Amino acid sequence: MAENKKMVEAITSMEEDFTKWYTDVVIKAELVDYSGVRGCTIMRPYGCALWENIRDELDKKFKETGHENVMMPMFIPESLLQKEKDHVEGFAPEVAWVTHGGSEPLQERLCVRPTSETLFCDHFAHIVHSYRDLPKLYNQWCSVVRWEKTTRPFLRTREFWWQEGHTIHETEQEAREETERMLNIYADFCERELAIPVIRGRKTDKEKFAGAEATYTVEAMMHDGKALQSGTSHYFGDGFARAFNIQFTGRDNKPAYPFETSWGMSTRIIGAIIMCHGDNNGLVLPPAVAPVQVVIVPIAMHKEGVLESAEALRERLSRVCRVKMDCSEQSPGWKFAEYEMKGVPLRIEMGPRDIEKGQCVAVRRDTGDKTEIPLDDVEASVSRLLEAVRDGLYKNALARREKMTYTAANGDEFRRLAADRTGFIKSMWCGSEECEARVKEEFGLTSRCMPFGEAAVGDTCPICGKKADKVIIWGNAY
Amino acid sequence: MAENKKMVEAITSMEEDFTKWYTDVVIKAELVDYSGVRGCTIMRPYGCALWENIRDELDKKFKETGHENVMMPMFIPESLLQKEKDHVEGFAPEVAWVTHGGSEPLQERLCVRPTSETLFCDHFAHIVHSYRDLPKLYNQWCSVVRWEKTTRPFLRTREFWWQEGHTIHETEQEAREETERMLNIYADFCERELAIPVIRGRKTDKEKFAGAEATYTVEAMMHDGKALQSGTSHYFGDGFARAFNIQFTGRDNKPAYPFETSWGMSTRIIGAIIMCHGDNNGLVLPPAVAPVQVVIVPIAMHKEGVLESAEALRERLSRVCRVKMDCSEQSPGWKFAEYEMKGVPLRIEMGPRDIEKGQCVAVRRDTGDKTEIPLDDVEASVSRLLEAVRDGLYKNALARREKMTYTAANGDEFRRLAADRTGFIKSMWCGSEECEARVKEEFGLTSRCMPFGEAAVGDTCPICGKKADKVIIWGNAY
Repeated sequence: MAENKKMVEAITSMEEDFTKWYTDVVIKAELVDYSGVRGCTIMRPYGCALWENIRDELDKKFKETGHENVMMPMFIPESLLQKEKDHVEGFAPEVAWVTHGGSEPLQERLCVRPTSETLFCDHFAHIVHSYRDLPKLYNQWCSVVRWEKTTRPFLRTREFWWQEGHTIHETEQEAREETERMLNIYADFCERELAIPVIRGRKTDKEKFAGAEATYTVEAMMHDGKALQSGTSHYFGDGFARAFNIQFTGRDNKPAYPFETSWGMSTRIIGAIIMCHGDNNGLVLPPAVAPVQVVIVPIAMHKEGVLESAEALRERLSRVCRVKMDCSEQSPGWKFAEYEMKGVPLRIEMGPRDIEKGQCVAVRRDTGDKTEIPLDDVEASVSRLLEAVRDGLYKNALARREKMTYTAANGDEFRRLAADRTGFIKSMWCGSEECEARVKEEFGLTSRCMPFGEAAVGDTCPICGKKADKVIIWGNAY
Repeated sequence: MAENKKMVEAITSMEEDFTKWYTDVVIKAELVDYSGVRGCTIMRPYGCALWENIRDELDKKFKETGHENVMMPMFIPESLLQKEKDHVEGFAPEVAWVTHGGSEPLQERLCVRPTSETLFCDHFAHIVHSYRDLPKLYNQWCSVVRWEKTTRPFLRTREFWWQEGHTIHETEQEAREETERMLNIYADFCERELAIPVIRGRKTDKEKFAGAEATYTVEAMMHDGKALQSGTSHYFGDGFARAFNIQFTGRDNKPAYPFETSWGMSTRIIGAIIMCHGDNNGLVLPPAVAPVQVVIVPIAMHKEGVLESAEALRERLSRVCRVKMDCSEQSPGWKFAEYEMKGVPLRIEMGPRDIEKGQCVAVRRDTGDKTEIPLDDVEASVSRLLEAVRDGLYKNALARREKMTYTAANGDEFRRLAADRTGFIKSMWCGSEECEARVKEEFGLTSRCMPFGEAAVGDTCPICGKKADKVIIWGNAY
């Protein structure tokens, strides 16, 4: 147990310093390493496996809804980036510029894609001619680059990995439906697979994507009460189509502009998993995406029959989950701490006494609860326990969010809440950018979203006192 | 049939202009599209699905042999690229340089990775301390950039997708075994899954990878007799470890340098598939990686029961292969031509007469052979036919390679063969770079490899006439 303690002591506690706790977990769970390239991290095998599981789950959902993957170039010529006015204004200040190929200066400089709307539009202009060519429902998995000043693993790095969906449709209605469909896919994925409750809503004009007509978002609350934008879906109307001159011949034989959407989720979501579920023993991973769902730690493994029984159990469980057995020379205590740090949802201990009784002992990572489970039916019990971990994580996170979401009915309440607490503040909003800017300036809070289907909490804006019919969520954000 | 003809006529025939045939196939089968970024192509859904199948097959083999995926930054600081002398000389002339982040010039310029040895070495120096940390068996799937002057889809593009394996070992022997293991994985993958026969061998010093002690290669012959390097595996000795000062404490408690390897296969392999198996009707895809393995074309589909029977067949086949049914309004003739162009290995036709007889008709893409197959046992028959397509493709390619591989026992024969024919020339070689350079200069041939286990074809070098004990393969290369 001495080693066990030592390892756990090496993490700063959340209560002491949340930021340091986060960095400790990221490094000690071996998700990433810092690289020699400032602001860029290395995704280590454990982090990479986690991302691959997220990718595979999402990719399945995209394909089930008719989307196809493509791969676009990583470069955008400057003239192409400039075609849509708002878009270039939003992104040009933070792109990396390639100016030379070998020893020769380029005739036109290229940026490394910060996002690929312009490349997709250019391609669509090339391949979309008739309504018969529509819709195109495309997605790509890649990394993008934004030249951030201050960076933190997963939350903000100069290069990050993501998927970006780009679709083009015959009608406005189809494009709007697509925008909503993908928002719901993200929300359901966060809630079911990642056990992270999210608020679905629309961004204010100030916070929307550069070039979008409307941006929709799913917002999650972290352990410290701060918000993390977890996925966004944008409706473009025909703005990009007009800027890139994408036209098709409609059913009426007349030329028309198509309607577009884009939507993305990135490795930031790993930051959300860490900060939503983690604890002072390290990472806690939702079973659906955990690289190892169950770890078997044989106890007194040099006693006769222990290793064989543990291996037989591993073999059986490998048919229902991602299971690993650790029969290294380290002590059980060291292993317990190690797999707690790595957030493995379920640990199974099995020693001579368990074998005698025809059972093993399962320990949940989220609660620490121990259950003796009979070997007869171990596959079903383990599946049930993994489901229980997912449910426990979700309920916990939801209870925390509810506890830390405050309602401000008037200016006094707003000021008091904004000064006193970290969490979400729900209030009415008049809709003016002025009030939004004032909240940011005075309290450091940003609008997270105008949530869907949320009941009004009064009829005046707590900032300016004017009539207000929009419900809005404010928060400190990552 | 008029439409059918029209579509086929749109491809230049191989015999008329092989280069144009290739480009026609690539574009008309919708594998790629040209992009607005010079020298970079767009991987369209069909090409992307093909690459994803290749990726998934290879990834499985890598994981089965203990490799883990990581994701490295896409940038390399100039000082890091320069650490290994031969490596920087090989790559610096063809890299893209990032010089600005937003509007600010960078303090040190960054290149977009042309390959990632330097990044992996930098990371290894950070995480490898003891023999207990070894080996690390890493791989990454990503794109890399080389600023080529002339480009062709798949064969040579400024950005291309690949995997690059990077491993680090305690002993020379382990590293050498790894180099050989990965070469064999590539070779077996080419031969079994892609049905492309390959020659395994070692590159000459002139042709080896910049910074490697030895480079091993698998070389394939295309339809026109030219060679395509299809995968390479490099043994680095401890050269990179010394340059990057990667040291570990050995079992004897003394500091030591580890041994490294790297190995890669890229989207070039799609070029090999096209040029090895394709014909004048378009693409011919090996079943293991074909996005659609079987296409069902209902005949007289407006007659009662046809669509239902075809759909029932699709449903059954979907359990054993990647199957698609085309019930669009296009004529059967149009569909036949379309899926021939796209290289779908097996077409199944099903009309009222077939349904009556309880059968369907299968048509092989490679031979055009038609077989009536009873529905009772259709899953097994289709699996067998797909296997037969793979075998047929392999045998065909092997026969062509054997026919177009010539042996030159002396200088006269060498000159006559090099002047007259395209294909592989097998000869002895004295081992001097001078002779190698002369062959390139005089005949435009490069050394492809020194093949493993190939019997000597004399004992003198046909170029200089001196004693020679190395067998070598010469060819025109893509």
